[in-house]
Amino acid sequence: MKMHLDCANCFLNQAIRTGRLLGCSDRCLWQMVKGCGQVLSQVNEDLPPPQNAVALYDMIAEKAGIRDPFYKLKKESTRHALGLYPELKRKIKDHMDALEAALRFAACGNVIDYGVSSDFNLLKEVEKALGTRFSVWEYNAFLKRLSKAGWILYLGDNCGETVFDRLLIEELKKPVKYAVRGGPIINDVTEEDARDAGLHEVAEIVSTGYRAPGIVLKECSDSFRELFASAPMIISKGQGNFETLSDENREIFFIFKIKCNVVSSFLDLPLNTMFLGRTKAQAG
Amino acid sequence: MKMHLDCANCFLNQAIRTGRLLGCSDRCLWQMVKGCGQVLSQVNEDLPPPQNAVALYDMIAEKAGIRDPFYKLKKESTRHALGLYPELKRKIKDHMDALEAALRFAACGNVIDYGVSSDFNLLKEVEKALGTRFSVWEYNAFLKRLSKAGWILYLGDNCGETVFDRLLIEELKKPVKYAVRGGPIINDVTEEDARDAGLHEVAEIVSTGYRAPGIVLKECSDSFRELFASAPMIISKGQGNFETLSDENREIFFIFKIKCNVVSSFLDLPLNTMFLGRTKAQAG
Repeated sequence: MKMHLDCANCFLNQAIRTGRLLGCSDRCLWQMVKGCGQVLSQVNEDLPPPQNAVALYDMIAEKAGIRDPFYKLKKESTRHALGLYPELKRKIKDHMDALEAALRFAACGNVIDYGVSSDFNLLKEVEKALGTRFSVWEYNAFLKRLSKAGWILYLGDNCGETVFDRLLIEELKKPVKYAVRGGPIINDVTEEDARDAGLHEVAEIVSTGYRAPGIVLKECSDSFRELFASAPMIISKGQGNFETLSDENREIFFIFKIKCNVVSSFLDLPLNTMFLGRTKAQAG
Repeated sequence: MKMHLDCANCFLNQAIRTGRLLGCSDRCLWQMVKGCGQVLSQVNEDLPPPQNAVALYDMIAEKAGIRDPFYKLKKESTRHALGLYPELKRKIKDHMDALEAALRFAACGNVIDYGVSSDFNLLKEVEKALGTRFSVWEYNAFLKRLSKAGWILYLGDNCGETVFDRLLIEELKKPVKYAVRGGPIINDVTEEDARDAGLHEVAEIVSTGYRAPGIVLKECSDSFRELFASAPMIISKGQGNFETLSDENREIFFIFKIKCNVVSSFLDLPLNTMFLGRTKAQAG
C-alpha cells in the first residue's frame, strides 16, 4: 500500500515521540521536527510508509547522535518477554488446541507495551491483549497450508514480540526460516536481537538484507528474494510488513493488530482489531 | 507566544485543508505536503505561529498557482455577513445595553462559518455562537478604558467578521482606525475587503504594512508602529492577532475564540471558550 496523506502527520508524531523517548531537549525536538520536514519535502508518495520511514529514522539517529537509538529498549523488551516464556509455554501446552493458543499469543506479542516493569504487569498486558477481537481469523486456511508446507518463511517484526514468535514456531512443527531486518531500525528485530530471544534454537535466522521497518522486496538481497519466491508458506508479523507486502501477488498469512486509520480504511476493517489471514486478493 | 511543537502538525493540516478547499487533486495535495515539509524544515520556533505561517501560505499560493487563493471565499463571506447587518443592527438597538450586545456579536463574528448558504442559516449560526461561554469577560475594564480614550486602534481579523466589527465600531462612539493586513493572506481582511464591508464609512482604514495573519510589529511599517505605540486604546480581534501580540508590553483588549490547544494551554483557559479582555501581565 502507498503513503496516505495522514502518514505525513504520523511521521511528525513519530519524530517527536522518538525524540521524547530519547530524552531530547525542546531545542533538540525542534531539530527532529525540522529534520522530519526535510524528509517530508522529499517523500515518495507512491512507496509504502515503511520505505519512506527509513529516511525518517536515519534523520532521528543523526539528530540524536546515536546509530541505534532503540538498542537499550530492544534489549529490555526481549529480557522482559523472556521472563514470561515459561508461563506462556505452560499455558500453550495446557490448551486443548496448542497451535491456536500459540497463534493468539503471537498476535498479542504485536500489541504489548514491554516498557511496563514487572513480569506480573506484563502477564496482565498479555491477558488484556488476549481479549482483543479478531476481525479476520482464517485459522482453517492457515492449518491447511501448514499441513502441506515443507518449510515456512516467518517474517519478524519487533523485539519482545520475538519471544512470542518463538513460542508459535515451536508449535508449527516444521522447519522455519526467521527473517530479520538487515540493520537496526526503530525497535525492529535484527540478527542479534533474534539470538537474544533464542530464535536461533528453533529456526534458521536469515536477513532481508535491507534496513526498513517492513519488507521492501526490491531493496532486499537476491538470496532473500529467492527465499520469498520459493517459500511454500509465509507468515508475516506486524503492520509494517503488511504495509509493504499487501500488494504482493502471492499468498501470505499476516498476523498483526490494525493500529492506524490508514490501514483500517485500506482493509475496510475496524481499528484496534486483530488480523490473522490473507488479503482478499491474495486469498483469491 | 512562540511556536509549539503541536503547531507543526497544524501547519500540515492547514496545507492539506486549504488544498482541498481549492479543489486540489491528490497529486497536488502531496505537493502541498512536500511544500509544507520544506517550510517546516526552515521554521523559526522562536517566532509566533502566524509569522511562520507567511511562508506556509506563500507556498500554498505558489503550488496552487493563485496569488490570492481565498479571494472568492472572502467576497462571499463579506456578502453573506452584510445580509445579516440590518437584523443584527436592530437586535443591538433593542438591547438594554447596546455596547454589550455589539461586543458579543463581534466575538461571534470570529466563530461563524460563512460558507453556509442562506441568511436564515447564518442567523442560526449567530444564535449558536451567542451561546458560547466567555472564560474571560473584562467588560468593566473595557468600559473604563473606552470612556477615557480619545480614539481607538481596532485590529481586524477575517472577512465576514468585518461586518460584526463595523457593528461594534458604530457603538463605540469614538474615532476608530481600523487596521488591515498589508496584503492578501488566508481569508484575512485587506483594504479592499474592509471597504467591501463598509468599514471606510465608520473608521479610517490603515494598513499594518505586513502580510501576516497576525500583527508582527517589527515587520510592520513605521507609521503603523507609531499608531500602535500612541493609541490610547487597542481592540484586537482573532486568535492570530493574539498569538503575535500576547507578549507585548502594553494594554490590549483581545476579543477571540480560543480555537486550539496550544493557545488554551498558554492561557490556562478552556478550549472553545470566548475571551474578552487583557492578558494577566498586560492587565498589571
